[in-house]
Amino acid sequence: MSYPFLKGHGTENDFVLLPDHDGRLHGDLSPERVRALCDRRAGIGADGVLRVVRSNAIDEGHALASRAEWFMDYRNADGTAAQMCGNGARVFVRHLIDEGLASPVGTTAIATRDGVKLVSTNGPEAPISIDLGPPRVADESVIGLGHWSWPARNVSMGNPHAVVFVDSLEELGDLGGLTYDAAVYPDGVNVEFVHRLGERAIAMRVHERGVGETRSCGTGACAAMVAAALADGLAPDVSYDVRVPGGSLLVTWTESGVVLTGPAVIVASGETDI
Amino acid sequence: MSYPFLKGHGTENDFVLLPDHDGRLHGDLSPERVRALCDRRAGIGADGVLRVVRSNAIDEGHALASRAEWFMDYRNADGTAAQMCGNGARVFVRHLIDEGLASPVGTTAIATRDGVKLVSTNGPEAPISIDLGPPRVADESVIGLGHWSWPARNVSMGNPHAVVFVDSLEELGDLGGLTYDAAVYPDGVNVEFVHRLGERAIAMRVHERGVGETRSCGTGACAAMVAAALADGLAPDVSYDVRVPGGSLLVTWTESGVVLTGPAVIVASGETDI
Repeated sequence: MSYPFLKGHGTENDFVLLPDHDGRLHGDLSPERVRALCDRRAGIGADGVLRVVRSNAIDEGHALASRAEWFMDYRNADGTAAQMCGNGARVFVRHLIDEGLASPVGTTAIATRDGVKLVSTNGPEAPISIDLGPPRVADESVIGLGHWSWPARNVSMGNPHAVVFVDSLEELGDLGGLTYDAAVYPDGVNVEFVHRLGERAIAMRVHERGVGETRSCGTGACAAMVAAALADGLAPDVSYDVRVPGGSLLVTWTESGVVLTGPAVIVASGETDI
Repeated sequence: MSYPFLKGHGTENDFVLLPDHDGRLHGDLSPERVRALCDRRAGIGADGVLRVVRSNAIDEGHALASRAEWFMDYRNADGTAAQMCGNGARVFVRHLIDEGLASPVGTTAIATRDGVKLVSTNGPEAPISIDLGPPRVADESVIGLGHWSWPARNVSMGNPHAVVFVDSLEELGDLGGLTYDAAVYPDGVNVEFVHRLGERAIAMRVHERGVGETRSCGTGACAAMVAAALADGLAPDVSYDVRVPGGSLLVTWTESGVVLTGPAVIVASGETDI
């Protein structure tokens, strides 16, 4: 049976979107199907799947339905469910705008496994901002890679991050062999390596749990910015440019939360029978 | 402007197909657009593009139009035009069959930059066979990788191949740093590393020029089989199972040519504005 999909990306963090408004097609979206859709050769290929479903049509969304009509059911490429995805949320809202399900100017509330998030934009093709809420900053732990190890700032943006400052991003080579303290991060961790480019400007590489190195990670950009601002002795309100391999993001730390602003593009739509 | 595409694969060698029957949409298909379509994060993602065009609607196809209605305009992921692609040809014909443009039982002639090829199948979902013509076998040259070097059999299947026999495919590690004799292969070369699995059964890894390591290469499987049969002292007619990272192929060397048989799947179709 064939069903509709779209493909889109935010700073080259890419997603297969599955419109499933009433939860009928993919109420049983299996890890196997997610993996098959995300397979970059035998499938469509993506870092994850964004199922677009009404909040009242998914168990995890019922309690949020009065505040947000649409639930972002996000799955990692390995099939696991995830709490939040900042780049994915922008692509999710771009799709709602394209379909006339959200206003192209103003603020839309969307439901996620990390609660209700507010997403703003000021035009049908303008950058999209998402308020990811306040960061939770904890003690340092240690991240290892090959012969190296570094102290890492522990920042939660709804999902767990470890932020490491390095002199060079290129010298790190392959990020596949990362180690972390499983007592601090029992569910795994996203690791950001951050290099300073100048005043309130950083570049980063990111290794996402369940995926591997990606071209961008929205919550990772926010965690990296918070760690950099703390190291710089800066407090809200302050903005940083965050350069990721797939593009540029603007991260603003306000009293109410961390706001991620960046592009979101739908590149294809169609039908698949995967 | 949005236009139609499909995505498919043969043993996980994957392609974006562009139906462009009269050559109007993509008569000017630029290398930049090919690269953008094949980009695995910002685009749709594939090892190459197969433009589906009538032979009389493309300059290179005019002379072949009386023998083959459809021309396979194949481009590598880096935007360069290529002569032939055995896995691509099967996916190309699967699409023609799906659209009612070729018979699901029997033989279809398709035009390519390497001339007219005969493609056979015996059902709408059956494996597809393509006769890639006789191999041209030449002197050995040397292939290098890191500290290693090997003698390589030079086999042309319309495109150039260098076939190396090794004891282990895993030990090779990353194939990115391959070296070859540019005097023998002035236009680059596809390199196959072949490990013997048993009688008339081989496994291989392949590094395609203009692409990098792929999950499969149809002409590469044929070149590897011919080199193995020659080393085994076998002549036509003989068949080998050829295991590639993306699946299994059957290669038959007959008096008239080398016939590649394997799966071909369309996984998605839709519209894109890349």
